[in-house]
Amino acid sequence: MQGLHLIADLRDCAGPTRLDDEAALAVLCLDAVARAGLRAVGSLFHPFTGPDGSPQGVTGVVLLVESHLAVHTWPELRSVTADVYVCNVGADNTARAEAVMARLLDAFGPREPRVQRVRRG
Amino acid sequence: MQGLHLIADLRDCAGPTRLDDEAALAVLCLDAVARAGLRAVGSLFHPFTGPDGSPQGVTGVVLLVESHLAVHTWPELRSVTADVYVCNVGADNTARAEAVMARLLDAFGPREPRVQRVRRG
Repeated sequence: MQGLHLIADLRDCAGPTRLDDEAALAVLCLDAVARAGLRAVGSLFHPFTGPDGSPQGVTGVVLLVESHLAVHTWPELRSVTADVYVCNVGADNTARAEAVMARLLDAFGPREPRVQRVRRG
Repeated sequence: MQGLHLIADLRDCAGPTRLDDEAALAVLCLDAVARAGLRAVGSLFHPFTGPDGSPQGVTGVVLLVESHLAVHTWPELRSVTADVYVCNVGADNTARAEAVMARLLDAFGPREPRVQRVRRG
């Protein structure tokens, strides 16, 4: 159960991914894990809407054989928090986790990315 | 987007919750967040099985208005990792997050719980 958890708090996001677009966020996350060689076993994304039905933030997760990816967006703050957590059972998935986070940073374009690395297990 | 992320790595779990029981784990997590006053907007649990179809670990998540809860279990190691992440938009959810984690610790019964507290945002 030893693993690595990348914890990102991203402000001043300038795209290109829209933070209120549930479908685009799901595609981004699923594509990022697939390209990195991680194995998705399920995903769930939930769009929040304002009183008038307008799209607001999105929260979503991809369940992995290796653990999970989660994102939460606040379009009104141009902010995102993201988690990429991989266990290293049978393989060292550190580089795969870093590749996923790099893809997310490219997609969200934060001015000053803050990424914490927590060793787990 | 400021918040608190509780990160638990739990070994030598002695129950009472079975670590290979997807349904029990889902009930535990949904009940824990509801009792703490957090608001679930969705959940997804995935059971892993061995080559003979026997139940193995479970990975699952509850999406919250306040962010998310995630659990990963390794019955063969009697181990669990759990995340309770709450944002404090509009309210301080620190006590609610701690209440959820306390419920999980009661349910999993680890010998030496290791819980890290990460401030986010």
